[in-house]
Amino acid sequence: MERSLYNADHEAYRETVREFLAREVEPHKDKWDDEKWIDREVFARAAKTGIYALQVPEQYGGSGEPDYRYRMVVCEEVSRINALSFGLTVSLQDDLVLHYLLDLTDDAQKQRWLPGFAAGETIGALAMTEPGTGSDLRGIRTSARRDGDHWVLNGQKTFISSGIMADLVVVAACTDPDAGSRGLSLFVVERDTPGFVRGRQLDKIGLPAQDTAELFFDDARVPAANLLGEEGRGLQYLMGHLPRERLGVTAKAMATTRAIYELTVDYCKDRRAYGKPIIDLQHTRFELAEMSTEIDIATAYVDASVLAYNAGTLSPVDAAKGKWYISELQKRVVDRCLQLHGGYGYMREYAVGKAYIDTRIQTIYGGTTEVMKEIIGRDIAR
Amino acid sequence: MERSLYNADHEAYRETVREFLAREVEPHKDKWDDEKWIDREVFARAAKTGIYALQVPEQYGGSGEPDYRYRMVVCEEVSRINALSFGLTVSLQDDLVLHYLLDLTDDAQKQRWLPGFAAGETIGALAMTEPGTGSDLRGIRTSARRDGDHWVLNGQKTFISSGIMADLVVVAACTDPDAGSRGLSLFVVERDTPGFVRGRQLDKIGLPAQDTAELFFDDARVPAANLLGEEGRGLQYLMGHLPRERLGVTAKAMATTRAIYELTVDYCKDRRAYGKPIIDLQHTRFELAEMSTEIDIATAYVDASVLAYNAGTLSPVDAAKGKWYISELQKRVVDRCLQLHGGYGYMREYAVGKAYIDTRIQTIYGGTTEVMKEIIGRDIAR
Amino acid sequence: MERSLYNADHEAYRETVREFLAREVEPHKDKWDDEKWIDREVFARAAKTGIYALQVPEQYGGSGEPDYRYRMVVCEEVSRINALSFGLTVSLQDDLVLHYLLDLTDDAQKQRWLPGFAAGETIGALAMTEPGTGSDLRGIRTSARRDGDHWVLNGQKTFISSGIMADLVVVAACTDPDAGSRGLSLFVVERDTPGFVRGRQLDKIGLPAQDTAELFFDDARVPAANLLGEEGRGLQYLMGHLPRERLGVTAKAMATTRAIYELTVDYCKDRRAYGKPIIDLQHTRFELAEMSTEIDIATAYVDASVLAYNAGTLSPVDAAKGKWYISELQKRVVDRCLQLHGGYGYMREYAVGKAYIDTRIQTIYGGTTEVMKEIIGRDIAR
Amino acid sequence: MERSLYNADHEAYRETVREFLAREVEPHKDKWDDEKWIDREVFARAAKTGIYALQVPEQYGGSGEPDYRYRMVVCEEVSRINALSFGLTVSLQDDLVLHYLLDLTDDAQKQRWLPGFAAGETIGALAMTEPGTGSDLRGIRTSARRDGDHWVLNGQKTFISSGIMADLVVVAACTDPDAGSRGLSLFVVERDTPGFVRGRQLDKIGLPAQDTAELFFDDARVPAANLLGEEGRGLQYLMGHLPRERLGVTAKAMATTRAIYELTVDYCKDRRAYGKPIIDLQHTRFELAEMSTEIDIATAYVDASVLAYNAGTLSPVDAAKGKWYISELQKRVVDRCLQLHGGYGYMREYAVGKAYIDTRIQTIYGGTTEVMKEIIGRDIAR
Repeated sequence: MERSLYNADHEAYRETVREFLAREVEPHKDKWDDEKWIDREVFARAAKTGIYALQVPEQYGGSGEPDYRYRMVVCEEVSRINALSFGLTVSLQDDLVLHYLLDLTDDAQKQRWLPGFAAGETIGALAMTEPGTGSDLRGIRTSARRDGDHWVLNGQKTFISSGIMADLVVVAACTDPDAGSRGLSLFVVERDTPGFVRGRQLDKIGLPAQDTAELFFDDARVPAANLLGEEGRGLQYLMGHLPRERLGVTAKAMATTRAIYELTVDYCKDRRAYGKPIIDLQHTRFELAEMSTEIDIATAYVDASVLAYNAGTLSPVDAAKGKWYISELQKRVVDRCLQLHGGYGYMREYAVGKAYIDTRIQTIYGGTTEVMKEIIGRDIAR
Repeated sequence: MERSLYNADHEAYRETVREFLAREVEPHKDKWDDEKWIDREVFARAAKTGIYALQVPEQYGGSGEPDYRYRMVVCEEVSRINALSFGLTVSLQDDLVLHYLLDLTDDAQKQRWLPGFAAGETIGALAMTEPGTGSDLRGIRTSARRDGDHWVLNGQKTFISSGIMADLVVVAACTDPDAGSRGLSLFVVERDTPGFVRGRQLDKIGLPAQDTAELFFDDARVPAANLLGEEGRGLQYLMGHLPRERLGVTAKAMATTRAIYELTVDYCKDRRAYGKPIIDLQHTRFELAEMSTEIDIATAYVDASVLAYNAGTLSPVDAAKGKWYISELQKRVVDRCLQLHGGYGYMREYAVGKAYIDTRIQTIYGGTTEVMKEIIGRDIAR
Repeated sequence: MERSLYNADHEAYRETVREFLAREVEPHKDKWDDEKWIDREVFARAAKTGIYALQVPEQYGGSGEPDYRYRMVVCEEVSRINALSFGLTVSLQDDLVLHYLLDLTDDAQKQRWLPGFAAGETIGALAMTEPGTGSDLRGIRTSARRDGDHWVLNGQKTFISSGIMADLVVVAACTDPDAGSRGLSLFVVERDTPGFVRGRQLDKIGLPAQDTAELFFDDARVPAANLLGEEGRGLQYLMGHLPRERLGVTAKAMATTRAIYELTVDYCKDRRAYGKPIIDLQHTRFELAEMSTEIDIATAYVDASVLAYNAGTLSPVDAAKGKWYISELQKRVVDRCLQLHGGYGYMREYAVGKAYIDTRIQTIYGGTTEVMKEIIGRDIAR
Repeated sequence: MERSLYNADHEAYRETVREFLAREVEPHKDKWDDEKWIDREVFARAAKTGIYALQVPEQYGGSGEPDYRYRMVVCEEVSRINALSFGLTVSLQDDLVLHYLLDLTDDAQKQRWLPGFAAGETIGALAMTEPGTGSDLRGIRTSARRDGDHWVLNGQKTFISSGIMADLVVVAACTDPDAGSRGLSLFVVERDTPGFVRGRQLDKIGLPAQDTAELFFDDARVPAANLLGEEGRGLQYLMGHLPRERLGVTAKAMATTRAIYELTVDYCKDRRAYGKPIIDLQHTRFELAEMSTEIDIATAYVDASVLAYNAGTLSPVDAAKGKWYISELQKRVVDRCLQLHGGYGYMREYAVGKAYIDTRIQTIYGGTTEVMKEIIGRDIAR
């Protein structure tokens, strides 16, 4: 169905984004994958173009744009060139870390941290997950003990996206083990904090350029001024930011799904077997028809979610529904598209092959499909 | 997600519909099923309440309401009381037959036929399918030969919904076997036309009260004044009305899917096994969470389709996508809901059991799922 | 794959069964469906032909045949003529009730009950399920209190197959509410027992000729001599007979699946659309190829299960795997076959339409798919 | 179900294989993956242990073992240590290339080539696929023109497994473009043949140590003595060897599926979330129960296929059914197992992550799932 999500401003922005990606990302992305590292400078350039840290207020050097449709445009254009490691790194800022810094900081903190983001010079990370906790926030064991003007952190985090590259990590730690859901607090741990050590870059099956790491806190001394928001409200803050994070995953999933589908349509028109284009086979047409339908139906929901988010009405349950469903759709569609490519689909140089391995994390991070279903199911059972 | 489809007028209308159904349909529907026949009087009452033949212009005694959202409300309320045979009969008029009479008739024809619909006294049917043709309109073999002021029809139709009850049947017949896609014309065949014979009421596995029949034309003499539109444009007319018909199936499918899901949630909260409500089982919660998600996502598409239809922009391909996908969703959801009911689900007295057998035709009539995929696939392949 | 299950004796038996069904069942089965009742005399005739109560020892008038392959042949031939209500009634004896009477009876009991079965004059039922318990045997609330030479039963059972027709019902009742898993006992309740009342025949969506009923015990006085096996071992007996019952469901499921698939292949060769047989469509071929594959793969497991059962090595977990998987396969295959029939598939006169509604109970009775998965899952978790 | 496939000889062989793999493969396989190359010496050692080139007759230095169950044991043990690149290379010899050399060679050819295989010093490849042909053997355009005592080959092959490493490549080439299905012949092209050039090693998303390459023939001069079998019978030879090749893919698929499932069961018992092992969650148990069932059911078919192959009765259609079904099962199971691992599953160091990317080729090579369904569907349609 004809989408009505965008207006002329968004389409003009799309041109800007597309031009930037063609110049600054597409020529480098294979090198980044090979080196398992993205050149940091690209983020500064992206910030200048208005692609990175979109929502930082103008007074801190940003463009202060809250309309999620601009983020959606970025996702779509990144997916079109299959630069998913780059796209995820941007999303981690714009859909995740940055919102903690926008929402929970006092003026002094804003002044310290936001200009770096606005300039694309600061990369942030969020450290929730620990070995053995998964999505179970109540199981967090990293501790923060007050010691004068500092908090002393001890513990270990894992699967931290941009953990190696990050200049600044928002860390969830337990400030009161006896306080239950009020025992968690959030801290900004900055690069060069004594006792803060990064582990090795984890060897993932996909998203090679996107770094993921373990982090260690061994009596790490964090200034009291780096507490985010109020002590003891960490769990509430984390829960409150989940819809945005999940919308971010949903947006990327939708964009990648459609992009891979579209290039596969082209492939099926070009590729010949048994003397004719494979799109002339009924099976191929049915595969494409099914995918096209599922994509259009999902798009209706995602576009409605974006507008609901803009309006402040996207509930955690709505976001959870989008997150698991569109991520699973992405898996299904990319897999079917790869199959339609035959042997070529298994080659890394084909977009669909690369997308296949990059895709597999989608149903896991940001809350697994199973965690989403629990959230939705419990809401139904109430 | 919160739906934004309806405004206060629609909700007021919903109350009217609900009250009507509670009084005039719910007490009788089991009897109709047992007798395999719906009392005709209910349609006159429905017309009076503004539920039947909604779109007939005021000058012919109707309410002239083109907003499809009112139809959607009817579908939802009919599904809520699981009166699917009644709902289908209304839909056959409002989503199918009536539109041929509204769009293709001249003033004299309008004057002859529309008031009867507006009063709920005329029931119409559409006769396309023949034994051996299925959805292949080009294979139609019923012939119409001009003979003075009449057309003489010969042939056989099957699977004609309301074929027994209909006062008036729109029949597709071949007026020129050599003219290819311009060889088909449409005729209104009225009750008591000589040579027009109805076969037996077919014994379906579901929708018992909704009659389906074979029709025979044996030198049936139809007045020339009963030709609909122009001679030779029948195929074009049939194609042109498919989006509305398919939106009609989609609307019913969506409404039934949600209604059965909702009563199943209630069932799972009430029903206990192993000492607790079955909604406390993780499997039950996951089933409900998955269905709830799929329903919300599909709803976003259906609601957008309704608005597109109102705006005149719903394409045949968009309608085909909705038709097959939501019909298949209905099958899937009703089946899972039945399973959650255990042995009770297999009993006809449980709404879910009855809905199960009524549902199975949805992916077949109005164009099978496979025909929809061909339509979509060919559009992609162009 | 070529099956190696049968030898010449089984194939000779197949001829006998086929001839019997053609003469005694096929001409009557539609009438039985319409009347919702099977003529009892057919069971006597079946017994004479060696189709009913196969395993009753020769000394009690039976043929004492323990080889399950003969049962499998019966299932296959019954499915070939789509006489599923008849087939289920036979299976209830040969795969369920009879085994309680063969395994748990003393000589006097054998003498009282087995000759009636051998003659096909006695029909039995098993009454486990109660309103509110489902498959939860520990939740059984029907009580049996000793009173002199009798047991006095009070309670209610539901979904009892052949509950109306049965001359003899094996009833699970609680003889000691404080004894936990040792509190259940089994009783044979005979026709005309005072206080034993049958409810109405339940109105199912399928299997119309096969009666299913509620049973009520209101101070029903059962002679002490009708206790089956030892007091307090009922749960153990029920558990011990589940593999046979489940193999019975699996055997019927496999047979029906293959029969409906095979007639659908024929249909797809005959039926033409768009000018050629529909089997010439790639989609049709793929559907049939997928079903054919799934059927052959499942058959390998079922045939191995039959041999394992004969050898006494079919574990409850193996039987549970077959039960849920083949039942679900039956649902899936019959549904796809119906779809390939188009509108004809929705007609009761087509075998596939009738099989569709008869099939739906398979994943529910004899332990739902979900209960099977729990059994298997707990075994894995040990 | 208890498998009955193996006897004591096979289990003794399993010990030998297991010991060999633990010593010679497991310690090196990660290095091979990193280097994208397997040390050739391991094949000589494998040959000595009786794992490589099993079926070479004793007179040529082999063990002449035709029983496929020994191959199945190798597949199972290789999968247990997740050394799929190694396993595939062995399978390419024992299930594919070697059979051409055993079946189609004259004594002189046997003498030239078999001892090298028996010693594990010769690695072979089979070159069918060309850019643009996929599985369409009739589309092969590589040509062979007779020139005196030589054949002159021109053309290009792609996706050739072991294409870089191979000492000897069986090449399908067109010897008579006008002869239709009799126009294809097979040639052995040896290392250092003038005009035979290898392209780069293709960059696959999985199976890194297993080399896959493009091959080029530019007036490559192949001695007439290297023609395999008769001129013009190449297509027939290729078709005739497909069952064995497909059984080989099936065997590996089954073995990997079970191995990954089993390690996932262990993981689910160990891994804790929300304070308990995740196997205590109903969802986890259901996932494992479903996989366990599907695996047991598939195993029954695979084991029957192995015995049928040994007996010479495995038809091409039976082999095609196993190939697509078990490959798709592998994909499904490995994917679900990865999901149960959460974030760890996305790490290459976890067996399930590595297996995920290695698995994706299974439904493509050796004939795609779609080609298999065509083969089966056409057989049904006959």
